[in-house]
Amino acid sequence: MIILAVDSSSRAASAALWKDGDLLGEQFLNTRLTHSQTLLPLVDQLLRSTETTPAQPDCFAVSVGPGSFTGLRIGIAAAKGLAFAAGKPCAPVSTLEGLACNLLAHDGLICPVMDARCQQVYTALFSCREGRLTRLWEDQAISLAQLGEELARRREPTLLVGDGARLCRSFLGEGCPHVGVAPAHLLHQRASSVAMAAAALAEAGGLCTAGELAPVYLRLPQAERELLARQAAQQATNPATGR
Amino acid sequence: MIILAVDSSSRAASAALWKDGDLLGEQFLNTRLTHSQTLLPLVDQLLRSTETTPAQPDCFAVSVGPGSFTGLRIGIAAAKGLAFAAGKPCAPVSTLEGLACNLLAHDGLICPVMDARCQQVYTALFSCREGRLTRLWEDQAISLAQLGEELARRREPTLLVGDGARLCRSFLGEGCPHVGVAPAHLLHQRASSVAMAAAALAEAGGLCTAGELAPVYLRLPQAERELLARQAAQQATNPATGR
Repeated sequence: MIILAVDSSSRAASAALWKDGDLLGEQFLNTRLTHSQTLLPLVDQLLRSTETTPAQPDCFAVSVGPGSFTGLRIGIAAAKGLAFAAGKPCAPVSTLEGLACNLLAHDGLICPVMDARCQQVYTALFSCREGRLTRLWEDQAISLAQLGEELARRREPTLLVGDGARLCRSFLGEGCPHVGVAPAHLLHQRASSVAMAAAALAEAGGLCTAGELAPVYLRLPQAERELLARQAAQQATNPATGR
Repeated sequence: MIILAVDSSSRAASAALWKDGDLLGEQFLNTRLTHSQTLLPLVDQLLRSTETTPAQPDCFAVSVGPGSFTGLRIGIAAAKGLAFAAGKPCAPVSTLEGLACNLLAHDGLICPVMDARCQQVYTALFSCREGRLTRLWEDQAISLAQLGEELARRREPTLLVGDGARLCRSFLGEGCPHVGVAPAHLLHQRASSVAMAAAALAEAGGLCTAGELAPVYLRLPQAERELLARQAAQQATNPATGR
């Protein structure tokens, strides 16, 4: 099975080609360039360098969230377009599960942490044994303080991964010697890990159509949150209008 | 410090750009294309996509061996050329140590294994604790049987990595449940891991000039081994000629 995987859920963008359990190629870019400029050229270079046509992959995998709202939409639009044109299914991979796959060499707990701003994080928790993940928490948006409490309570060796990993490690201070941070070259989202997760998803019958592929934001965009807050405040001060 | 790292020591070819402890980009290609065709275009794409000039890196890192004789010469020639033109130092990274850096998330023993053909392997052994490697064996070319005996004797959780990892795991059979194989996406040489090893080498004062950079083959090429064997056989049958 050939899987083309892309990730543009955070600052880095990447594309990977996976065939029958082996990584054929990966392009990873972690600069300040926007994903609308970088992602499709990465896919194009990857396909050319591996001598693969856009119709050849059997499945198109993408990180569907949580993550940057714009980044997720770019990645999902690219995967949708490629899958629709090729008439092939998609693999909707949790960004946090993809991150956890960076650390499949670790035996213990893996906690992906993405900085969601305002002292909030997107996070989940996995147990990893002999290269296999077991999910312990669903993907969630919680406060850094709440995550800190949860991690301090557990005493198993834990590795943090993702762009919020160092932030979380600083927050924990000296109280949690069992919690470490992923090695620097495995800290960010990587399409090769998304492909690993997608292969497992395909085996478990978790693929979807291009039409069904949708982002998982976990929270409303800031503009909508502010609108709801304004509406709630308005209703509180003037309940009669009910607007 | 900016490090440009390349690896073409085995079937895969890769290039990575590293800056102050963060991975800016990586290109990885694991096809049957020859490295003389793939390596410099990978470097070129990497530099363009990260908006870096060939003179900007402070150090040029490369896997110097063991590995494929032709592959090593291509990688070293590329690093030498770039470093010489830029007037910057080189980081000569052991291919086996680079491979071990793929698994820095593992706590336990890491055993890189490269298939050296004829039931021989290139190998080394590292202990990894909290993302830091301690070398236990020098790089060496030994028989698969000898490596199997050594690994069976130790009882610590051990991960094999490299193109000989699965071969070695099959050879061990069911007797060694403490020995596993690296996750598939971390099985091959990667320039990002070479960059990680190079950063440590730079800190330890282990850089060299472009002129000093040289391959470490660990054994003679097959043609030279056959010549020596023929000469030894000749001398044994006709000691008088001494040729």
